[in-house]
Amino acid sequence: MKVCILSGGTGAPKLIQGLKEILPEEDISVIVNTGEDTMVGDLYLSPDVDTVLYTLSNQINEDTWYGVKGDTFITHNTIKEFENKENNTFGENLRIGDKDRALKMHKTHYINKGYPLSKIIKMEKELFGIKANIFPMTDDIVRTKILINENNNKYLIDFHDFWINRRGNATVVDIFYENSNYAGAPSKTIECIKNSDIIIIGPSNPITSIAPILSIKDIKDTIIESNKPVVAVSPIIGDGAVSGPAGILMKAKGYPVSAGGVYNFYNDLGININTMILDNIDKSRIEKTKLELNNSNIIYTNTIMKTIEDKINLAKSVLGSI
Amino acid sequence: MKVCILSGGTGAPKLIQGLKEILPEEDISVIVNTGEDTMVGDLYLSPDVDTVLYTLSNQINEDTWYGVKGDTFITHNTIKEFENKENNTFGENLRIGDKDRALKMHKTHYINKGYPLSKIIKMEKELFGIKANIFPMTDDIVRTKILINENNNKYLIDFHDFWINRRGNATVVDIFYENSNYAGAPSKTIECIKNSDIIIIGPSNPITSIAPILSIKDIKDTIIESNKPVVAVSPIIGDGAVSGPAGILMKAKGYPVSAGGVYNFYNDLGININTMILDNIDKSRIEKTKLELNNSNIIYTNTIMKTIEDKINLAKSVLGSI
Repeated sequence: MKVCILSGGTGAPKLIQGLKEILPEEDISVIVNTGEDTMVGDLYLSPDVDTVLYTLSNQINEDTWYGVKGDTFITHNTIKEFENKENNTFGENLRIGDKDRALKMHKTHYINKGYPLSKIIKMEKELFGIKANIFPMTDDIVRTKILINENNNKYLIDFHDFWINRRGNATVVDIFYENSNYAGAPSKTIECIKNSDIIIIGPSNPITSIAPILSIKDIKDTIIESNKPVVAVSPIIGDGAVSGPAGILMKAKGYPVSAGGVYNFYNDLGININTMILDNIDKSRIEKTKLELNNSNIIYTNTIMKTIEDKINLAKSVLGSI
Repeated sequence: MKVCILSGGTGAPKLIQGLKEILPEEDISVIVNTGEDTMVGDLYLSPDVDTVLYTLSNQINEDTWYGVKGDTFITHNTIKEFENKENNTFGENLRIGDKDRALKMHKTHYINKGYPLSKIIKMEKELFGIKANIFPMTDDIVRTKILINENNNKYLIDFHDFWINRRGNATVVDIFYENSNYAGAPSKTIECIKNSDIIIIGPSNPITSIAPILSIKDIKDTIIESNKPVVAVSPIIGDGAVSGPAGILMKAKGYPVSAGGVYNFYNDLGININTMILDNIDKSRIEKTKLELNNSNIIYTNTIMKTIEDKINLAKSVLGSI
């Protein structure tokens, strides 16, 4: 079975680990959010892409779902020392490990040379011996921006400013995907949707991981027109997100923080979800959820992926749903 | 006594270590060769400047006179792994340590921001708590180029290509300091010459370390016009260089590989050397040397600086010579 999974940086990669155990790796295609791509100092960062690369090459640091496990931070710590002494910054506001830095430098070098991101990712997946396909949502520059309210003024800030610098402490008014109206998807990204037997929306943040991907018209239209079964795993359990800022962003978009809210958010974007995979915990509000999901197909299972068995079981539930 | 020393990357820094032990650090000014500055991948490298910075902050790796002692090479080795797998290079043809990389990134960031190198060096010496003054020979782009003969064709190549990639294996025809005719010296570089009691030409490579500095007209003219005593330590002992490619480059310039050759090379540039410091070994050819040096003032001492005592003794000989 050929699967195409839309992925952000934490929930979906865990599910990918499960899929990798039960499917031939070549049959897995991942379309990755690049809306959080940014410059950190002089380095080009594609955080979700790198997490998927490290996940599929068994290098991911599973404590943070960012960077390489067991990495050291000698360069970063020295930079921080300099910045503290100078009471100034030359931009490394994110911890970059010494091994991880090589991948960031590789990407930066070829981005500066004008290579499309999709080509660089292909080089990097081959570097790591990854057989699965990894495609960026776009080779264009689409960036997730957060509109916040501060002292009765509205400010449009980068996602990194919101999530890293401010640690999510802001009154969010709205979220935009800058430039998405002009952006296209690489042809391979579109092909992978058309050639798949199932489209999986991973349990990543609907607003900042999945919606940026769907903000690319070519991708959304292809998913709708191809009429493939779409299965979504809810990243929200009960009334809270498993990780990250999904809750406060769902609220800002006017949706309840619940699996039903997630379903309706995708539905309002025009995506027909065939099956929603919810956590067993949500059984306690089964009647309410059914109502929210218009009696769509719901599967209850354990969606909190702590062990590899959890991941495999969830992957089996997803594939078994169609 | 205020000293101003012209420095490259190996011999002169050793002498600076000796001077630092016997003079107040504030009284030491170093004018550093920047003719070997280059891009290594996407990083700006100022090799001699960094060696002087690390020397004066007691961080220098004295095995290589390059980088930080005890440094690790995690990022570099990962990059090399990538390059080998891709059978391609994204440019790190020099080993850069993880701690050292932070300094390179600092310099690159501010160079790209348009800061003059002299300002960046001042920031970096303050970062390291260095009280001595460190000035680049120029804030302009002056680069040492090597003209080589290969299969009866002449090629003009970078010093790094000659020395790092080819390990000095080339038939050298001539050496040029590209752009030196247009370059000026920072005002502080000139002031430090005027305010010194002695100009020391360190035992660095005359052709690729000292001559680039003297290729800046402002510097050479100020040394000549200020009429300060100039003391040079010969980097050539007997008929061989202590380290590096001085020998083959001296020959290419038409000078004998000897202390007399060094003296005459500086003399032909218009610099009046008051005292040459030669190694004891050269006493065996004392009559010949006297002739080569036109009976100038010669001091014989141990110039091979292995221990800190060697360095202090040589520094004392230099200061005692005027």
